[in-house]
Amino acid sequence: MSKGLPKRADDYSAWYNELVKKADLAENSAVRGCMVIKPYGYSIWEKMQAALDKMFKETGHSNAYFPLFIPKSYLSREADHVEGFAKECAVVTHYRLKSSDDGKGVVVDPDAKLEEELIVRPTSETIIWNTYKNWIQSYRDLPILVNQWANVVRWEMRTRFFLRTTEFLWQEGHTAHITKDEAVEETYKILNIYAKFAEEFMAVPVLKGIKTETERFAGAVDTYSIEALMQDGKSLQAGTSHFLGQNFAKAFDVKFATKEGGLDLVWGTSWGVSTRLIGGLIMAHSDDNGLVLPPKLAPIQVVIIPIIKSKDQYALIDEKVSGVIQKMKARGISVHYDNRDTYKPGWKFAEYELKGVPLRLAIGPRDLENNTMELARRDTLTKEIVSMDNIDEIVENLLNEIQNSIFRRAMEYREENTREVDSYDEFKKVLKNKGGFVKAHWDGTAETEAKIKNETKATIRCILLDEKEEQGNCIYSGKPSSKKVVFAKAY
Amino acid sequence: MSKGLPKRADDYSAWYNELVKKADLAENSAVRGCMVIKPYGYSIWEKMQAALDKMFKETGHSNAYFPLFIPKSYLSREADHVEGFAKECAVVTHYRLKSSDDGKGVVVDPDAKLEEELIVRPTSETIIWNTYKNWIQSYRDLPILVNQWANVVRWEMRTRFFLRTTEFLWQEGHTAHITKDEAVEETYKILNIYAKFAEEFMAVPVLKGIKTETERFAGAVDTYSIEALMQDGKSLQAGTSHFLGQNFAKAFDVKFATKEGGLDLVWGTSWGVSTRLIGGLIMAHSDDNGLVLPPKLAPIQVVIIPIIKSKDQYALIDEKVSGVIQKMKARGISVHYDNRDTYKPGWKFAEYELKGVPLRLAIGPRDLENNTMELARRDTLTKEIVSMDNIDEIVENLLNEIQNSIFRRAMEYREENTREVDSYDEFKKVLKNKGGFVKAHWDGTAETEAKIKNETKATIRCILLDEKEEQGNCIYSGKPSSKKVVFAKAY
Repeated sequence: MSKGLPKRADDYSAWYNELVKKADLAENSAVRGCMVIKPYGYSIWEKMQAALDKMFKETGHSNAYFPLFIPKSYLSREADHVEGFAKECAVVTHYRLKSSDDGKGVVVDPDAKLEEELIVRPTSETIIWNTYKNWIQSYRDLPILVNQWANVVRWEMRTRFFLRTTEFLWQEGHTAHITKDEAVEETYKILNIYAKFAEEFMAVPVLKGIKTETERFAGAVDTYSIEALMQDGKSLQAGTSHFLGQNFAKAFDVKFATKEGGLDLVWGTSWGVSTRLIGGLIMAHSDDNGLVLPPKLAPIQVVIIPIIKSKDQYALIDEKVSGVIQKMKARGISVHYDNRDTYKPGWKFAEYELKGVPLRLAIGPRDLENNTMELARRDTLTKEIVSMDNIDEIVENLLNEIQNSIFRRAMEYREENTREVDSYDEFKKVLKNKGGFVKAHWDGTAETEAKIKNETKATIRCILLDEKEEQGNCIYSGKPSSKKVVFAKAY
Repeated sequence: MSKGLPKRADDYSAWYNELVKKADLAENSAVRGCMVIKPYGYSIWEKMQAALDKMFKETGHSNAYFPLFIPKSYLSREADHVEGFAKECAVVTHYRLKSSDDGKGVVVDPDAKLEEELIVRPTSETIIWNTYKNWIQSYRDLPILVNQWANVVRWEMRTRFFLRTTEFLWQEGHTAHITKDEAVEETYKILNIYAKFAEEFMAVPVLKGIKTETERFAGAVDTYSIEALMQDGKSLQAGTSHFLGQNFAKAFDVKFATKEGGLDLVWGTSWGVSTRLIGGLIMAHSDDNGLVLPPKLAPIQVVIIPIIKSKDQYALIDEKVSGVIQKMKARGISVHYDNRDTYKPGWKFAEYELKGVPLRLAIGPRDLENNTMELARRDTLTKEIVSMDNIDEIVENLLNEIQNSIFRRAMEYREENTREVDSYDEFKKVLKNKGGFVKAHWDGTAETEAKIKNETKATIRCILLDEKEEQGNCIYSGKPSSKKVVFAKAY
């Protein structure tokens, strides 16, 4: 039942695009580069938000909301930041329309030109640090641990559902601290939250590492990321956590009176994950039949489909099923009973397979006699007949098993596709034939990094936090190196 | 302990503005008309969102997300809509900045001009109906019951915290139906959800009614609203639910194949509440000492403050309090223990009073001996000594009592300030001396409505859904009228 999906092996990119559309996750909008996130896709985002928000709050963070618009001049306050973000952004120049002369439409009112243009936020460091200036006078006002769930806009030339869109949804944390150590600790704390979320909820194993200078966030001292391997052997940067040092405090003059009576610049961090995670979730697990969703993020965990030959069986099945639903709901399982008579069972089977519902239960006349249901697993496509008596317990255990199994499979895939190489020839061969993560020695220079990228399209995804020290030579320049780094082609 | 708040009786407007700032709810941003919602204010919004979102989902609605930007031409597709919304809006004309010639800043890149300008959504009917066109082919695709939590922008000339800001946060529901009756039913269903939310969570009694043509949403056939009375005698339109008829279906050509094989235009509704509700919450209950928050929406329901003379008492009090906290948390009560030693108890008392925490518990050395705590109610400012043994139960009951009591007080205030008048002189006298809701006969014409507004600043807030029929004469024109309508000055 492929529903006309391209196969991954034939055209991974087409498979992804079609899957997003056919599974009702998102579609293109009338506005270039902006997508509509449909209810089924959005409910995955809601589950992601709920899990992350809980983790942020458990670690002392609060949510707040800052303006969508940033005065143009703010972007230039931090020198590196403006380089990274001022280029491709939406600029508001006017605040009024008026009727056109022909009376048929509206035109921009030239009298309503803004004195200073406003930028639709591509990220909010500037407007937030400008605000923190007023919030912070003394050490007693610190730390500030604030997060914002918001939309941001970056004018992307080439877009792809979830992975890169002009407007996207994200959370951006912005914290302010008394000491450097505390800010660095916060940066790691969040990186670990992101990794935990990716592995425990998304069932996607991630590498944790530090970025090279080239790949660093514009305005950060250090950028850390989690990197996940997709089924086509490319890496997805799934979340970043930045140690900002005192850069934005300097740019916006944010100082605090110390306990000892001095005056110091504040230390900062910022960190974010976005709707890009949905793209990663899809690409990590799904197959040629459609989505495969981990139970913890699946909008529907279990679907029940009645198989009815004659209309008089409806009442009996409805009654049986309602008991099963009640027992499952009591265990916190999200279950959907699709007894629409406008669609046939076969159509429904294909539909929920495409949509990645982890478990499907079917019940027909013979099941009624035998007090059974047919249980089908989406991840393995296996089926079995189970008794209705303890079906809620079976389902609960199986959902846990599926969550773990999907993670294990992704972990095995990553292990099989992580290779260490000692020469540039080998490096190129692996990238060309197999992809995946390639660990190799690098001389630490941006020049070498750029040349390798240019020749192979592979970039340094990160330097693993737990990478062991070892003497070696850069695969490109032959210069000495003390650690291997992780290369991959990336989204 | 007035914390320098102006008194309501002296300057209601200044009292409101200062209270919003001093209670850490919001502050002005660097961007004209846009506010920063601070963590304490935002957590009220989160509680509102959670309660409303649950009610929407229980009635079959799903969330989705549509683009921030609307192509300019879309606004002109529905004739009334463009009149209402095209005027004051943020217009994106360019998509890139570049370095200025002096190298010191950035300027708009003239080469990056958009072919068609984009409007930052003031409301999303146009972009959503343009999307629904693709979602709806047959009666089997209906109804569509979708909601969006989003930011919107309306370029307001005069702004006020929460009540009217250039950017604000809201939810906007957009539904599509097969029949007129079903769409009308949806409009009422949502109006009732809004009223239930206002009364049961915000503890604010509301009138439910239909708007006059003058006050109707631009593009709607009928607009219904909930109206709440503030302490200064002005009405706040707190939520609106619109029956759109087939207006947007016509504008965007949204038709469906009927069961019978025909082709019909789709019927629509839209409805929204916004961060304006926070303004209403503040103005309905708070007093000259600060916020008074209903327990169901209070970010902190109970604060515990230790009163310590010497440092060695800390451990003992911490231990006692931790037991109390555990018991309260088990009952789902949100409790905050403020044992900071950087602030004195008196400062804390004033702070939490200002912030409207419904219950304050204080514990000092004598309480330790007696196994008691001092319990203070924010709404009545009364205090009593209670035993620690069953304090969780006392607190739980009291929180319910406070929720009800605040609502009763607001209801009494509204009843005292709702008056029926039979002459224009009386009408003007009531509005001038007392304000509040004034019920009077009206001849049903926009001319009379405009003249009354012009002469008294009062507008028709709504025609109550349950208003009784009675023969009378318009207080202004003397023409016959079959029902009284509700007038008030309004925010």
